[in-house]
Amino acid sequence: SGAKGLLGMASILAAALAIGIGILIGKSVVNVKTISDTIQWDFDAGIQDLILNEIKASNIKENLRLLTVLPHEAGSHQDEVVLTNLIKETWETHLDKVEVYPYNVLLSYPSISDPNYIELVFPNGSVALKTNYTEVPLDQNEKKPKVLPSFLAHTPNGTASGDLYYVNYGRVEDFEELLKLNVNVSGSICMARYGRIFRGEKVKNAELYNCTGIVIFTDPFDYGGMAKHSWSPEKSSIGYPNTWWLPPSGFQRGSVQMLGDPLTPGYPSLNLTYRINESKAKLPKIQAQPISYEQAYEYMAILGGQDAPEKWQGGLNITYKIGGSFKALHKNCKVRIHVGNYKVQKKVHNVIGYIKGWQDPDKYVLLGNHRDAWAFGGLDPSSGTAVVMEVARAMGVVVKQGKWKPRRTIVFCNWAAEEPGLIGSTEWTEQLEKRLLLRAVSYVNIDIAVQGNATMRAGSTPTLHNLLYNSTKSVQNPNEEEKKKNRPTVYDTWLHKNPNDHNLPFIRNLGSGSDYTTFLQRCGVASVDLRYTFDEHIPSYPVYHSLHDTFKYMENFIDPEFKYSKAIGQVAADVMLKLSSLSVLPLNPIDYAAKLRYMFKSLETTNGKLLAANGIQLTDLNSAIWEFGKAAQNLNNVAQSLTLASSESSIRIVNDQLFQIDRGFLDFNGLPGRLWRHVIFAPSSHNAYRASGFPGVTDAIYNVLNNSGSWEDVKQQLSVLTLKILSATDLMIA
Amino acid sequence: SGAKGLLGMASILAAALAIGIGILIGKSVVNVKTISDTIQWDFDAGIQDLILNEIKASNIKENLRLLTVLPHEAGSHQDEVVLTNLIKETWETHLDKVEVYPYNVLLSYPSISDPNYIELVFPNGSVALKTNYTEVPLDQNEKKPKVLPSFLAHTPNGTASGDLYYVNYGRVEDFEELLKLNVNVSGSICMARYGRIFRGEKVKNAELYNCTGIVIFTDPFDYGGMAKHSWSPEKSSIGYPNTWWLPPSGFQRGSVQMLGDPLTPGYPSLNLTYRINESKAKLPKIQAQPISYEQAYEYMAILGGQDAPEKWQGGLNITYKIGGSFKALHKNCKVRIHVGNYKVQKKVHNVIGYIKGWQDPDKYVLLGNHRDAWAFGGLDPSSGTAVVMEVARAMGVVVKQGKWKPRRTIVFCNWAAEEPGLIGSTEWTEQLEKRLLLRAVSYVNIDIAVQGNATMRAGSTPTLHNLLYNSTKSVQNPNEEEKKKNRPTVYDTWLHKNPNDHNLPFIRNLGSGSDYTTFLQRCGVASVDLRYTFDEHIPSYPVYHSLHDTFKYMENFIDPEFKYSKAIGQVAADVMLKLSSLSVLPLNPIDYAAKLRYMFKSLETTNGKLLAANGIQLTDLNSAIWEFGKAAQNLNNVAQSLTLASSESSIRIVNDQLFQIDRGFLDFNGLPGRLWRHVIFAPSSHNAYRASGFPGVTDAIYNVLNNSGSWEDVKQQLSVLTLKILSATDLMIA
Repeated sequence: SGAKGLLGMASILAAALAIGIGILIGKSVVNVKTISDTIQWDFDAGIQDLILNEIKASNIKENLRLLTVLPHEAGSHQDEVVLTNLIKETWETHLDKVEVYPYNVLLSYPSISDPNYIELVFPNGSVALKTNYTEVPLDQNEKKPKVLPSFLAHTPNGTASGDLYYVNYGRVEDFEELLKLNVNVSGSICMARYGRIFRGEKVKNAELYNCTGIVIFTDPFDYGGMAKHSWSPEKSSIGYPNTWWLPPSGFQRGSVQMLGDPLTPGYPSLNLTYRINESKAKLPKIQAQPISYEQAYEYMAILGGQDAPEKWQGGLNITYKIGGSFKALHKNCKVRIHVGNYKVQKKVHNVIGYIKGWQDPDKYVLLGNHRDAWAFGGLDPSSGTAVVMEVARAMGVVVKQGKWKPRRTIVFCNWAAEEPGLIGSTEWTEQLEKRLLLRAVSYVNIDIAVQGNATMRAGSTPTLHNLLYNSTKSVQNPNEEEKKKNRPTVYDTWLHKNPNDHNLPFIRNLGSGSDYTTFLQRCGVASVDLRYTFDEHIPSYPVYHSLHDTFKYMENFIDPEFKYSKAIGQVAADVMLKLSSLSVLPLNPIDYAAKLRYMFKSLETTNGKLLAANGIQLTDLNSAIWEFGKAAQNLNNVAQSLTLASSESSIRIVNDQLFQIDRGFLDFNGLPGRLWRHVIFAPSSHNAYRASGFPGVTDAIYNVLNNSGSWEDVKQQLSVLTLKILSATDLMIA
Repeated sequence: SGAKGLLGMASILAAALAIGIGILIGKSVVNVKTISDTIQWDFDAGIQDLILNEIKASNIKENLRLLTVLPHEAGSHQDEVVLTNLIKETWETHLDKVEVYPYNVLLSYPSISDPNYIELVFPNGSVALKTNYTEVPLDQNEKKPKVLPSFLAHTPNGTASGDLYYVNYGRVEDFEELLKLNVNVSGSICMARYGRIFRGEKVKNAELYNCTGIVIFTDPFDYGGMAKHSWSPEKSSIGYPNTWWLPPSGFQRGSVQMLGDPLTPGYPSLNLTYRINESKAKLPKIQAQPISYEQAYEYMAILGGQDAPEKWQGGLNITYKIGGSFKALHKNCKVRIHVGNYKVQKKVHNVIGYIKGWQDPDKYVLLGNHRDAWAFGGLDPSSGTAVVMEVARAMGVVVKQGKWKPRRTIVFCNWAAEEPGLIGSTEWTEQLEKRLLLRAVSYVNIDIAVQGNATMRAGSTPTLHNLLYNSTKSVQNPNEEEKKKNRPTVYDTWLHKNPNDHNLPFIRNLGSGSDYTTFLQRCGVASVDLRYTFDEHIPSYPVYHSLHDTFKYMENFIDPEFKYSKAIGQVAADVMLKLSSLSVLPLNPIDYAAKLRYMFKSLETTNGKLLAANGIQLTDLNSAIWEFGKAAQNLNNVAQSLTLASSESSIRIVNDQLFQIDRGFLDFNGLPGRLWRHVIFAPSSHNAYRASGFPGVTDAIYNVLNNSGSWEDVKQQLSVLTLKILSATDLMIA
């Protein structure tokens, strides 16, 4: 997963000291007035307790143990046969129906016979340094066969060589900074460190600035728990297995694209589906390879050229140089990067399980998580799979007991091949696009369920904010220390750790990086992404996408008692319960209006004067947002006025209006040059992990400012944005 | 309107002899087993009688008189103010709510101060012939001010000159025929006759073959009731006002595009909407002008070059020549075409009236007709407006009497600016795209209501065929002679005049040419187009788009007693009644399956061997159609099994599945290079009036055969088609 987070474990110590919590889950008092407070429930209030109490930490632990026993990358026997069957068979015992959706997709693997490597080469051809591409097992369990060597999926095989330049995080602004320093990286290899932006953007930028290859390393400052200028090979490791930090030998694997199967853009990869020629696929054209920081040190320590800017300095105990040449003895050496990756079409399998709704079986509330991992998947994603399996079991048990049935159909989604580019979920939403567009109520995503134990974090579309506050208030705080501090629920710690300007827990906008992407971006389905996380300012948990992301890592450093896993499962179950079973959907349109107003102010503050100076007014956009707000307020009033005596059709109409709001924001023409359709939120064009607000407009402004667009484009995008806000408004009115 | 028809008046005599029919409308026995036969009705059976009996010929006549008193082209005061208000105010008295939707759109007019003309010019510059551009009024009523001179809307102003070539109907095959005859029309003016294809395609083809201008005339063989080689200026006219045929001085105006406002493709033309630069709009670049056959004679009679093929010969009493030069005295003359048309943004107004549904007010059943006419609009379109107004009144009266309310909302649509390119309906569906996509049940179109009195004709998507058979059986035959021949209903004459292979009335597939286009092509809404028509093999009724299409023409030659008008109104009312009020929608999925099988066989027969020879199999397509058929059969079974005791939600689910089928066929990527999205039916790329079956595939094959495409494109389109059939199947299952 493209998992990113700013909040991490409070500290390893705190985690180690944390103790178990009882099973009693009370419903907390809800202070915020929400739709769901005033309307009738389709289930007895006790059902919520029944379901939440049914979720057991011990089951999640056992699930995780089973899921992580072997590496299970996309396309492997372990993932596509063993785990697919495990989940299918488990769900068949708990759920009403299970379907397996296979797709034939283009996957990418490192070659064993033609291994990837980086070399430092003297002019006479002799090799000064050669960097291997396997990680060092640091534990008996990690010495399993078939762990994939480190690589970047879907990067092309071949060999590139040239001078080496250090490009910091490989962002556009980093390359621009080099140009200001009169450094031209064209024709050279660049060395970037992980972090800040999606690795695929680093590769894209390297290509954009005409590099012939890119090496990406994890800097110990970002992932190794080290201060600046502190790590060198003499220093003994403070990393795994002694701490949760990445050891010097650790690599971060990953994908460089998140658009599904590269050969079938926009269409599901069935056998009958036409494949475009690989040369036309949106894939990198240059060689790319990740390395560890102990390997990076060997190159960075001898790199010459001017000193890199202060902000570019990292955790290696050297002065980071810009490069272009090497020091002393190695002055005229070049770097060679060899990639032996191969691409192959393989069958991957989504497992989809259903609890059929009794009233609206054709309305879908989905909970999804991916199955495939780069290695063992201790956290990413099997912590999520373990939780989703337990939620499915708990809900299924209560249904089988005859105590409850959801009003709408609950769909549990176990996605294949997320890591190489959100492939399983993308192909499925491409196959079922119309069904989802017409009938999907909401999508809840859990990728990594627990990557720290400081607090919950969430991203979601605005209509779901209120529900998230509500559900987290219904789940007891798994942290006893926090409870002692008068923070009894998940909500309380969340608010304490990460409040927004309105003294509510901060919820980020959705960009990309996991399987909610295509639900929101292709089908306009209101979406949520949930996890428990750390609170340190690091790009991700340290062993992310490495060999060391194992069951043992989870047990030793993250959630020894699986109580945070259980809490996130309870939050998800509560969200699913309410979305599937409340007569009136707990979706709040007013929060969307508030978000639009906030985004408008932000746009106006940042660019209002510049736009006005170029003859562009924001008045129409402002009016449209005002219209949207009026309609949202009115719809909310109607929703609140519904009672048990309201007619079935009046409830249905309001529900349709509530869940269809995001459909209004889709532009089927797509954002300029992109597959995405949502004009309010899209993965940022310069960092897919982040959401870009009003992406068409902000990209157009960015392009003008970077001399690659015109104000006419800005006007056009402003018009599209305004029209789609009016379209969403129309859906709430008519 | 792009009205076309192969069936016309049986004869003028028959029409003149036809006598009035009483008001009693019995419900005929339905022989074909349909969904609607077996399910409960939401209204008393007597309601059908009440509504059909409420429709009065005298009211339609009075409506038509009011509507045709002055010319009322799009953008004129008469159309945008007088008639808009007339309809708005009338509907406000009958309906629950009326809304006016204004759009600011690019219209096109001929200039009075810079008139269009055609000239024949000697090398020394002196003018041998000059052709005016106004029609000759042949009646006191036609001498109104402000009748637009003849022109082709949205063709550019300017002057072109060159040799003149006769190009028959201006089809691709006609230009190809010339190439075979070693005739190169590049750089010349071409002279085409009306008919066979949409005039816009003639202009497009002329541009494609590098002509600098095009003159289009109505051949008396096609429009003047003349035999081949029979008309010359000496001959006295057999045309209007003595007969219904086009007089020698008559012109056919018209548009050359049908994509809505050319400056806002894909978006509604609100004030805030961005307009593309006119140079980027999909509009012709060459001069074009229609002329009468008496004017065409002057050029054709002296045209030189080789004899045109026998099939190209027409009604002028000369031997049609290919041209390239003129005869004798005029040998070295050139033709000059001058166009003074100007384009201007104007406000146009759709009037939308509602009868609110009691159960599903958010589900829409629409009946639409356009208001604007090229001149008086006697038939096109005011005969339709007069009928739709009467249907709205009749339904409104029954509602006001408290005797009935539809289950779903009925929407009456009075479209603006259809003639210059389906503008009113296109902008509206662009504005309300999502609402229609999610909630529109069906769209019923009446453009010209009556253009002859031989039989009803219809085009529709397959799910509506059964309903059309059903409703026409419920309406008494307006023709007494036919009744005497044991054909008591509209259905019987329709079947008698135009049976298909299954001994059911023939229903054509929908291409373009009227306002259903964008409902079907953009939003995937099941659609119908209805009219009464002639049964002669002529391209359209003779005075189509001319000055002579008046109230008087209707009264004298088409429907003196307005009984055919009434019958078409009754058919439309019955269709609207059933679609809006039956608990289970009368949409038949099985007929869609049959249509797909038929189209598959046609594709296989025509191209199967050729495809196989190029490694392309149709097996996946065949399987998908088989899957579709199974799902359709099953859905129909479920629909038939519903009873009064069925739950509201089970009925709702089946209804959603029934009306959403066509949504499955939409490809939001669009057909290659086109705005249209429906992969089963689209306006043919070579004649927009006609529907092309499997348009992506057939266009791709056409392109390969004409050396402008590849078999890879065919494979790709076949894949898209197959996937979308599976998508439609999915919507019927899930």
